[in-house]
Amino acid sequence: MQAINASIGFDAKMWRQDIRGSLAHAAMLAHVGIISADDEAAIRQGLAEIAAEIEAGKFEWSEALEDVHMNIEARLTERIGEAGKRLHTARSRNDQVATDFRLWTRDAMDGLAAQMLDLVRALVARAEEHAGTIMPGYTHLQPAQPTTFGHHMLAYAEMIWRDRGRMLDARARLNECPLGSAAMCGTGFPIDRHATAKALGFDGPTRNSLDAVGSRDFAMEFLAACAICATHLSRLAEEIVIWTNPSFGFVKLSDGLTTGSSIMPQKRNPDAAELVRGKTGRMTGNLVGLLTVVKGLALTYAKDLQEDKEGVFDSAENLTLCLAASAAMVRDMQPNIARMAAAAGDGFSTATDLADWLVRELKLPFRDAHHVTGKLVAKAESMGVDLSGLTIAEMREVEPRITDSVFGVLTPAASVASRRSYGGTAPDNVRAMVAEWQERLA
Amino acid sequence: MQAINASIGFDAKMWRQDIRGSLAHAAMLAHVGIISADDEAAIRQGLAEIAAEIEAGKFEWSEALEDVHMNIEARLTERIGEAGKRLHTARSRNDQVATDFRLWTRDAMDGLAAQMLDLVRALVARAEEHAGTIMPGYTHLQPAQPTTFGHHMLAYAEMIWRDRGRMLDARARLNECPLGSAAMCGTGFPIDRHATAKALGFDGPTRNSLDAVGSRDFAMEFLAACAICATHLSRLAEEIVIWTNPSFGFVKLSDGLTTGSSIMPQKRNPDAAELVRGKTGRMTGNLVGLLTVVKGLALTYAKDLQEDKEGVFDSAENLTLCLAASAAMVRDMQPNIARMAAAAGDGFSTATDLADWLVRELKLPFRDAHHVTGKLVAKAESMGVDLSGLTIAEMREVEPRITDSVFGVLTPAASVASRRSYGGTAPDNVRAMVAEWQERLA
Amino acid sequence: MQAINASIGFDAKMWRQDIRGSLAHAAMLAHVGIISADDEAAIRQGLAEIAAEIEAGKFEWSEALEDVHMNIEARLTERIGEAGKRLHTARSRNDQVATDFRLWTRDAMDGLAAQMLDLVRALVARAEEHAGTIMPGYTHLQPAQPTTFGHHMLAYAEMIWRDRGRMLDARARLNECPLGSAAMCGTGFPIDRHATAKALGFDGPTRNSLDAVGSRDFAMEFLAACAICATHLSRLAEEIVIWTNPSFGFVKLSDGLTTGSSIMPQKRNPDAAELVRGKTGRMTGNLVGLLTVVKGLALTYAKDLQEDKEGVFDSAENLTLCLAASAAMVRDMQPNIARMAAAAGDGFSTATDLADWLVRELKLPFRDAHHVTGKLVAKAESMGVDLSGLTIAEMREVEPRITDSVFGVLTPAASVASRRSYGGTAPDNVRAMVAEWQERLA
Amino acid sequence: MQAINASIGFDAKMWRQDIRGSLAHAAMLAHVGIISADDEAAIRQGLAEIAAEIEAGKFEWSEALEDVHMNIEARLTERIGEAGKRLHTARSRNDQVATDFRLWTRDAMDGLAAQMLDLVRALVARAEEHAGTIMPGYTHLQPAQPTTFGHHMLAYAEMIWRDRGRMLDARARLNECPLGSAAMCGTGFPIDRHATAKALGFDGPTRNSLDAVGSRDFAMEFLAACAICATHLSRLAEEIVIWTNPSFGFVKLSDGLTTGSSIMPQKRNPDAAELVRGKTGRMTGNLVGLLTVVKGLALTYAKDLQEDKEGVFDSAENLTLCLAASAAMVRDMQPNIARMAAAAGDGFSTATDLADWLVRELKLPFRDAHHVTGKLVAKAESMGVDLSGLTIAEMREVEPRITDSVFGVLTPAASVASRRSYGGTAPDNVRAMVAEWQERLA
Repeated sequence: MQAINASIGFDAKMWRQDIRGSLAHAAMLAHVGIISADDEAAIRQGLAEIAAEIEAGKFEWSEALEDVHMNIEARLTERIGEAGKRLHTARSRNDQVATDFRLWTRDAMDGLAAQMLDLVRALVARAEEHAGTIMPGYTHLQPAQPTTFGHHMLAYAEMIWRDRGRMLDARARLNECPLGSAAMCGTGFPIDRHATAKALGFDGPTRNSLDAVGSRDFAMEFLAACAICATHLSRLAEEIVIWTNPSFGFVKLSDGLTTGSSIMPQKRNPDAAELVRGKTGRMTGNLVGLLTVVKGLALTYAKDLQEDKEGVFDSAENLTLCLAASAAMVRDMQPNIARMAAAAGDGFSTATDLADWLVRELKLPFRDAHHVTGKLVAKAESMGVDLSGLTIAEMREVEPRITDSVFGVLTPAASVASRRSYGGTAPDNVRAMVAEWQERLA
Repeated sequence: MQAINASIGFDAKMWRQDIRGSLAHAAMLAHVGIISADDEAAIRQGLAEIAAEIEAGKFEWSEALEDVHMNIEARLTERIGEAGKRLHTARSRNDQVATDFRLWTRDAMDGLAAQMLDLVRALVARAEEHAGTIMPGYTHLQPAQPTTFGHHMLAYAEMIWRDRGRMLDARARLNECPLGSAAMCGTGFPIDRHATAKALGFDGPTRNSLDAVGSRDFAMEFLAACAICATHLSRLAEEIVIWTNPSFGFVKLSDGLTTGSSIMPQKRNPDAAELVRGKTGRMTGNLVGLLTVVKGLALTYAKDLQEDKEGVFDSAENLTLCLAASAAMVRDMQPNIARMAAAAGDGFSTATDLADWLVRELKLPFRDAHHVTGKLVAKAESMGVDLSGLTIAEMREVEPRITDSVFGVLTPAASVASRRSYGGTAPDNVRAMVAEWQERLA
Repeated sequence: MQAINASIGFDAKMWRQDIRGSLAHAAMLAHVGIISADDEAAIRQGLAEIAAEIEAGKFEWSEALEDVHMNIEARLTERIGEAGKRLHTARSRNDQVATDFRLWTRDAMDGLAAQMLDLVRALVARAEEHAGTIMPGYTHLQPAQPTTFGHHMLAYAEMIWRDRGRMLDARARLNECPLGSAAMCGTGFPIDRHATAKALGFDGPTRNSLDAVGSRDFAMEFLAACAICATHLSRLAEEIVIWTNPSFGFVKLSDGLTTGSSIMPQKRNPDAAELVRGKTGRMTGNLVGLLTVVKGLALTYAKDLQEDKEGVFDSAENLTLCLAASAAMVRDMQPNIARMAAAAGDGFSTATDLADWLVRELKLPFRDAHHVTGKLVAKAESMGVDLSGLTIAEMREVEPRITDSVFGVLTPAASVASRRSYGGTAPDNVRAMVAEWQERLA
Repeated sequence: MQAINASIGFDAKMWRQDIRGSLAHAAMLAHVGIISADDEAAIRQGLAEIAAEIEAGKFEWSEALEDVHMNIEARLTERIGEAGKRLHTARSRNDQVATDFRLWTRDAMDGLAAQMLDLVRALVARAEEHAGTIMPGYTHLQPAQPTTFGHHMLAYAEMIWRDRGRMLDARARLNECPLGSAAMCGTGFPIDRHATAKALGFDGPTRNSLDAVGSRDFAMEFLAACAICATHLSRLAEEIVIWTNPSFGFVKLSDGLTTGSSIMPQKRNPDAAELVRGKTGRMTGNLVGLLTVVKGLALTYAKDLQEDKEGVFDSAENLTLCLAASAAMVRDMQPNIARMAAAAGDGFSTATDLADWLVRELKLPFRDAHHVTGKLVAKAESMGVDLSGLTIAEMREVEPRITDSVFGVLTPAASVASRRSYGGTAPDNVRAMVAEWQERLA
């Protein structure tokens, strides 16, 4: 029973939050006159000493005391006597754990949001550097249109920025304080919940005591935000794995971010990228875990909810690793400009430029221009040349009105330069967008 | 191949959005001079006729044309000729489908957010009616403290309100327009993406074309918001299932929301509640499905992303059903006030009130008060009486300083009335909170 | 990088399996002449000493050495020199880790299958004891037909027996030895893979080296078997939670399996049951996690696969806890026979018995009998009596041919006694099935 | 209410199973004398006519009748009168739906297992053809050792073979007949459940009526088997997507399995592979869905269980598509032997062969051989040559005892030929394994 019941094995992680919460509670109790100023001073002193003990690794956690809250309270009473026994007035383990867990999660959110910002910065920096570095743009992993490495980096900046937005929205929604909801119904003591909420950095107290002790959607939302971000990181990781394969050879990672072996010292296994990609699994798993726990649970607190923490801790810690590894890889990777440029010309990747030229210059309807382009591509393919390898005469066999000016749109460089619509891949656009980002990030 | 490839079987659902998008695109093309005003008029007219055909069930969807976009475009060209072939200028199926799908999802979000509001209204109305209706409050499904039916209803109002907040935040994040990102790199045509974005009710155009056609986090976030809300509804549903069991007998649902059988016409199976509870499964499943699809997917568009829609449609439609059923049950259920009141006295549910009295009146430290209360409860249990069934003499054997005034806190009614801390269960609190809600909802 | 890369934090758990594998490998290398008998003896001795060090808690695990395999190999070479460097001949970390992980998982499967057998035994014992203890049978958690507590216990025996079957099938499929597949392509050394397979208790060696190092379906299948079993346990746990609520009062758990509080010493929170129910979440989450990791992973070994272990360890350990807690609760719980019998008569639960009587005795077609029964139930309900509370005259107003013998089928006892079809709830059936089980379990 | 409650929209799919079950039930009822031979004949005739109506698309499904069972029974009574009303004697919708659903799932299992066999055949055929076709073997998607295309194909044969084993084990466990369990407790009619079980191809009747109507682990196990198989298919699909990218160019798919566009007719988007990869999402989602539905569900039947079918139908149908598409791609894909051979030499992929040579010929301990090889690789890399590009003199600077015979192991061809350990990649091994497979499949 103790084995299945005790949570101290994982919830000790919340000791800072537990002490922070108790300090705020004691201060409020003294302020409204439920405990004396002396008691409050003793509690404050006692908790400071306990914090020091824990920091120093000298605190003895007891599984018999079950959780972090009882461990700390028991130790407090051991140290300061009567006053310690008064600390729990007008609160209960139910609101206490809900408060501590929100504080921990909020701290994690703040850390992750900061890391996301850092990753965006890294992406924007590479985008600035490579606004004009041509690479193949793929759909279906087949060459579709030339793009630039900078534009590609900014695509991830957008995703991570939204991930950060999700995290901040979740934070705002979480930011109400359950403390004072007591076991489930509130209390008859004349407590000041607005005061504790404020002291702990919350926007205010929660408005319904049953909801306060029995709900965990703040944790689910956090896990969802982590899982979605992890999915984005897994895409970048997949690309890095593919790009570093020698058949691609688009980027190179340095030794610090890869592993080799004594036998193949040249080998650079993109382990960090693979782990980032793989860790998506646990992020999704943790989310599913909590959704499953809460499904069909009658109000209010049930012991099932003790299963809420490990997944949150695990997602937070692993996303921290993933974001750090991703930012490091983004900063580190060396694009092979020649390899990317060569691949960018593959697969008649300027076919849409040709079609657009036909629409613009010859006023062909778009679908007809598509059709003509298809014929020219087929002709080029059968001759084993690129679109720019066809002579004007060969082109005119398909569409007699084509003029020499068409050659101006058939190179990857011309293609990317032309795509100046808002959000498009033209190097000038990318540079402008980098500037916008820099302002946003400043 | 056609069987696995075609999407018309499910994406026809987006026909309104597809036509809306095309109208905005054509208007913009004409405005900037890429197509003529006549072409635009013809397109507008043609699309209006197609919409009428679809509404009337006369449109013939073709699986060979693969998806809703090609079906409509092909029909348009069939009807209006050349002009139809010009419609696709400066866009591609990739940005078109991304736009249509965002529009559909946004419409779904709006509908669901409105339903959430309706459910909150229903809950608040019942809370007003039953602010003082005493019922047992459970932790671990064991009686812990008396609460009120009204307070319980407001707990769900809080959850659903946050669910609505999540939906609105997701909507705000989704609300950028991908149209004009073309295949993946934008276009060289002088389009006005801000104009189409505005015409379609978006806050503006997306800022990166690769991201615009290749990202689906707006759909993941929507699915997560649905899954979390479904989890909340499953809790209410579980409670309704338990409450309608005859051993509880707390509430009764009318025939419209239950099913019986010819053989047991009195039986009222809470099918609607069970289905609401059960549908949590598919909501979580749909979320996992899309997270899995996108995991490890190289940019930009890949056919895997065609798997994004069915889950979103399914979650939207089923959450619509669940919210409607939940609101109907909340409005319908008839609490059995006597049964609930009787159960509220079970299990020494005023023990914490006694402990608080000891702290307040006798100045016992909280942990000591706990201990004394425990002894009194044990004594009452061994005598087979309630706490209020102990005489003052019997109580004084445990704690000599207890006075008669203690009996004032030992009834469920006194208990709930005393819990006046912010967010607590006191009927006056509940009424004040109802008033706050009514203002918020007005 | 080290933080994200090292696995020693969790894979040290496989140290026994790692040493077992190395012993078998060394013995084989010596047998076929790749290393000398002296080297093999030194390795055997060295590994025995290392095992003793680990057992004694004296082994110093190094994160720099990354994983359990390198830690042990490095220590071996430190202790025995040259011979240690020869141990890794004709194997690689890829086949080594695959072997160790299979061994660990197989051990876990064996332990869990044994626990499942124990739980079935516990259920069968309670079924024997309560073959005739009447309780309400619910559909939709509404009374449908009387059943017996023994029959109910045997329903779970069936589920857990199938869970065990799934575990054993998974074990049989896992039971091929990857050792000797080397990095991914096998080796040119004249090793004897059948010998190592046999020494390690496998049915034989795996047949394809790429599959051997790159597949993890054995782990997925294990996780699925755990998740399904956990789902079954969650149903029993839910019932225990409901049954121990005082409105039901069907069973009582003793103090060892519940938690109270100092303030409410009489309270028996069914924490163990709630944790069993809640732990379903992580089981499903771990399964989803690994399915997500492996999705879309190119062959053969990728570092993503390092994410395979923690979920397996976690599911194994938690299912061990859940099975132990479930068996303990099954053995412990005290049914309140009177409460269950009283509830079994609720809700006109013998209506189907009446309908069957009408078919059997009056030859009414089944659907007509249903209809007549419905009328009788409605009549009884309107009069506020049970079916057996109607007089024969009152019954004959609905169906004139009804005779007094009908009263013989209207009690819960008569109802359960009559249901003698194979697998039915009749106490004699249950006793016969218990006997069958006892034979099966002997 | 009807919208959320009716299941006819999806369960009509089980009409064949429903009729099959009713025929068996009626035959048994007549055989034991519960209904007359005439009634049975009428039922048989009536059901045959209804089957013909459904086949012909003339049956009018009614949502008001809720499900497939009531639709067919109502129509039967409409056609044959009284006899139709007797069909439901001694059964209930609960055991009927459980039976129908098992029959449907079993049919799906049989179809999928046959498709898996077909895919294995396709893989083995390509393995035979390409037993000696050299390609790079990757770990971490980095070149590690040369392997052969045939060996690679056989790796998938192993996985799919195990997938088939899982499906067959699930089938065996499912194969007990719930019919006759009635609503939940069995029946008092003297039915012969062994007869109906046999008539419907089951191994026998289920042994506990509560379990029979309330359990769905057969469906969960089926969904898990589908999800695991889908994960395997997603790996092959990922490889096909990568292999068809022009930087790889390892295989080419023909037009029938790819899509192009009018504008880029040469483009061969591997849509089928991408959809196979993407559909893993819904398979995992469907599994999670059902696990969630059943979590925490009190016995026996609850309406939540109506949510069991759509996921099973969806996984069955989509896995059918995925297996068909995978087999088609395996049969179709044309390896580019030259591209693969060229890439197989990349990355010093014969380094382990060199190390093994040092162990074998010079008796170096394995770890020392690793070290020497590492130095030689580093030297070659710095000189910009392959290992075989080093002269013997250059090699001897690192290890003086190296002889000319070392060059015999440095080519990809020599490497693969040497790996003759059981399950290794040597072409002769692959051919032998193909022969074994052909025997197994015969």
